[in-house]
Amino acid sequence: MKQVPVGVSARHIHLSKEHIEILFGKDYELTVLKDLSQPGQYAANETVKVEGTKNCFEKVRILGPARGDSQLEISKTDSFYLGVKAPVRESGDIEDSPGIKVVGPAGEVEMEKGVIIAARHIHFHTSDAEKWGIQNKQLLKVKVNGERPLIFEDVVARISNDFALDMHIDTDEANAAGVKNGEMAEIID
Amino acid sequence: MKQVPVGVSARHIHLSKEHIEILFGKDYELTVLKDLSQPGQYAANETVKVEGTKNCFEKVRILGPARGDSQLEISKTDSFYLGVKAPVRESGDIEDSPGIKVVGPAGEVEMEKGVIIAARHIHFHTSDAEKWGIQNKQLLKVKVNGERPLIFEDVVARISNDFALDMHIDTDEANAAGVKNGEMAEIID
Repeated sequence: MKQVPVGVSARHIHLSKEHIEILFGKDYELTVLKDLSQPGQYAANETVKVEGTKNCFEKVRILGPARGDSQLEISKTDSFYLGVKAPVRESGDIEDSPGIKVVGPAGEVEMEKGVIIAARHIHFHTSDAEKWGIQNKQLLKVKVNGERPLIFEDVVARISNDFALDMHIDTDEANAAGVKNGEMAEIID
Repeated sequence: MKQVPVGVSARHIHLSKEHIEILFGKDYELTVLKDLSQPGQYAANETVKVEGTKNCFEKVRILGPARGDSQLEISKTDSFYLGVKAPVRESGDIEDSPGIKVVGPAGEVEMEKGVIIAARHIHFHTSDAEKWGIQNKQLLKVKVNGERPLIFEDVVARISNDFALDMHIDTDEANAAGVKNGEMAEIID
C-alpha cells in the first residue's frame, strides 16, 4: 500500500523580498508561527489583506521564507468570492495568471500576476519515489477514504531530496472528500 | 456510456409553510424566479438571512414549494464559515442535525434542526434506472472529467417517476472537480 498523509492547504500567500519590504517596511523579516511539513517552510505570524474585484480577505497567512515571485494560492470557492479568475496551476507557473491588490501595515502592492489555484500534488522524498517506482511529474490516481470517499486523478508527483512525503490538496478538495489534515490517502495507480 | 448531467447545488433553504408565514407574513406565497431540473421544484425570488455562530449569509435562496420540514443545505466550506457542524446527510434525514437562526422581512425563526450537507446523489427517472439496471439507494461510482478530473464514490441513486436525470453535487465537490452546471459525468460502476 502506497500510503501518503494528506496536507490541506488553506488560502495563503508567498511574497518576494521586495513585496515584503513594501508591505511591512524596509529590511523587515517574517517571523515564524509554525513549521510546515516541507523542510524549511513555515507559516509566518504575519498576514496581509487581499482585495478582489468582488470581496476581500482581511487576513491571508504568509508562508515563508521569501520567494522569487509573489504567489497567492486560493481555492476555486475563494476565486468566485474574490471575483478573480485564477487558473489551476502548479506552484511557480504564474505566467498569464491574474494579479491582485495586497495590503500590509506599511504599504500596498498591486501584484501583476500570481493568483493561482494550486494543482493537487504529492511531495515525495527521492527515497519514497524510488521505493514506489514513481517518476517526477507523473500523474497519479489517489483514493481518499474520508467521510465522502473519492479518487483524485491527475495528482502531480513532485520529487526532491528536500521534500517530505505529503499530498497537498486545497480546501475545496478536502471538503469534497470530507478529509482532514494528517489523514491518509492511498496511491492506487 | 451512462452519462448524467451535473447539477451544482449552491447553498439554499427549503422552508415549511409555518416558517414561510413567520418569515414573510401570514398566508405569504413564494414567487417563482426559475424552474429547476426536478419537475415542480423552483428557485424562489425570496431569500433569507441565516446566522451561524461565527458568520452569517445575508441572502440564501429559498427553493420551493414549501416542505414539511425546513432544511438548510450548505457546503462543508460554508459550515466552517458559519460555525455550524452540519453532517453529510440525504435530503430529509435531519434528525440530530444542528439548527440555525433564520431571518426574514417579517420575522425570525430559530430552526431547531435541519442544517445538513447534502450527500452527493443522482436523480433517475424510473425509465433511466430500468434501462441501466440501477436500484434505488444503490451507491455508484461516477467519473467527472472536468478541469480537475476525479471519481466520486458513494453517489446515492434516487429513483422516481417524478425525477429528471441529474447528478447533484455541492459547490465544494464541483470546485474540486472543476466542473460546471450542465456538464456531463459518467457512471462507471
